[in-house]
Amino acid sequence: MNGLDVQTLQRRLAAFAAARDWEQYHTPKNLAAALSVEASELVEIFQWLTPEQSAQVMEVPETAHRVTDEVADVLAYLLQFCEVLGIDALAALAEKIDRNEARFPVPKPPESQDRHSSE
Amino acid sequence: MNGLDVQTLQRRLAAFAAARDWEQYHTPKNLAAALSVEASELVEIFQWLTPEQSAQVMEVPETAHRVTDEVADVLAYLLQFCEVLGIDALAALAEKIDRNEARFPVPKPPESQDRHSSE
Amino acid sequence: MNGLDVQTLQRRLAAFAAARDWEQYHTPKNLAAALSVEASELVEIFQWLTPEQSAQVMEVPETAHRVTDEVADVLAYLLQFCEVLGIDALAALAEKIDRNEARFPVPKPPESQDRHSSE
Amino acid sequence: MNGLDVQTLQRRLAAFAAARDWEQYHTPKNLAAALSVEASELVEIFQWLTPEQSAQVMEVPETAHRVTDEVADVLAYLLQFCEVLGIDALAALAEKIDRNEARFPVPKPPESQDRHSSE
Repeated sequence: MNGLDVQTLQRRLAAFAAARDWEQYHTPKNLAAALSVEASELVEIFQWLTPEQSAQVMEVPETAHRVTDEVADVLAYLLQFCEVLGIDALAALAEKIDRNEARFPVPKPPESQDRHSSE
Repeated sequence: MNGLDVQTLQRRLAAFAAARDWEQYHTPKNLAAALSVEASELVEIFQWLTPEQSAQVMEVPETAHRVTDEVADVLAYLLQFCEVLGIDALAALAEKIDRNEARFPVPKPPESQDRHSSE
Repeated sequence: MNGLDVQTLQRRLAAFAAARDWEQYHTPKNLAAALSVEASELVEIFQWLTPEQSAQVMEVPETAHRVTDEVADVLAYLLQFCEVLGIDALAALAEKIDRNEARFPVPKPPESQDRHSSE
Repeated sequence: MNGLDVQTLQRRLAAFAAARDWEQYHTPKNLAAALSVEASELVEIFQWLTPEQSAQVMEVPETAHRVTDEVADVLAYLLQFCEVLGIDALAALAEKIDRNEARFPVPKPPESQDRHSSE
């Protein structure tokens, strides 16, 4: 499991781009566009599938490979975007979850309300 | 820095959806669409900016907040997508970087080639 | 029905942008990004709907208005993109349909094959 | 120039899908997704280009063909989307331009204001 944390992968991606002199292309604007292009390539796999079929894509090895590959591409561009703008993606998500937990409170389940009101 | 690893965040997102009975909406097809919609909201911030302006978006606090928020949304849907399909996003990216390092070898810098040819 | 042809609308859009000095923003790259952002806003309306619900969006006036508005935005950016690059969108589509008719021949219906084979 | 109006092309697309029994896949949700995928394929052509390079894509025949082809695909899915939901794309755009002309009034050019104030 060496190397399987976000910071290490983000550093590998930065070194990869630097070694190939690709940093000139990696403006935030271009990386956001590339991210959305990869996200759409993921959508393309599912575009004509029913909801049920979409839940079974990992059962066909070729499709599973394609889906996994697009996930890697999306994450790669997201981390490269964060790298050039100095954004901590994990901290951003943790804060967002905190805010969403306040914004969308868990509804009380109906049966416990019934039980409560009959007491 | 507790909780700031991908697995923990992915589990928090899964618990968040389960508690609100939102899992019914979280087909891989729908999550891929939601991911691409959030990626496009990131693109929208940059769509009329020059490359130079795009590199300065974090200097305006309001824009910085908006960009960070969209990064969180993209990562949230990517991890929820991976959750429902059982994909390890970090492993997928590590493998992709390995493959890309083989596919795009680092060009030898011209001066070292010169030095070599003069030996 | 005056003005309801593509060329007239494309000219109105070009005059609109010129009068507001917006042409400086309308690089093909930016217009393609804006087009994809508007297409994603259309996707957003449908992202959590079942296929059946998605077929009924025009029955709710507010949603119908939103869908129609996004269609207008997508077409607007598509025509502005075509304007700056000198592309005839209708001719491009007519040629594409011609090619697709050759590429995807209509399968003979099974019953006519049955009828034929029993003769 | 026969056939080069939107209604005729929209009818050809509808007949094309019906003849191949593809209507079952053409839910509004799927067509919106397909539209956004094609728009992203257009973005992909431009993603690493500078604004200046993006203005010259039609000078390379192969790229010009690719751009034109993606324009056709975007328009095809937009018209098929409009077909299944009964939306008149040209009327929607004409109304949108009317609204935008009211919403974004043309600024008076500075020199005419100067001239006026000196009278």
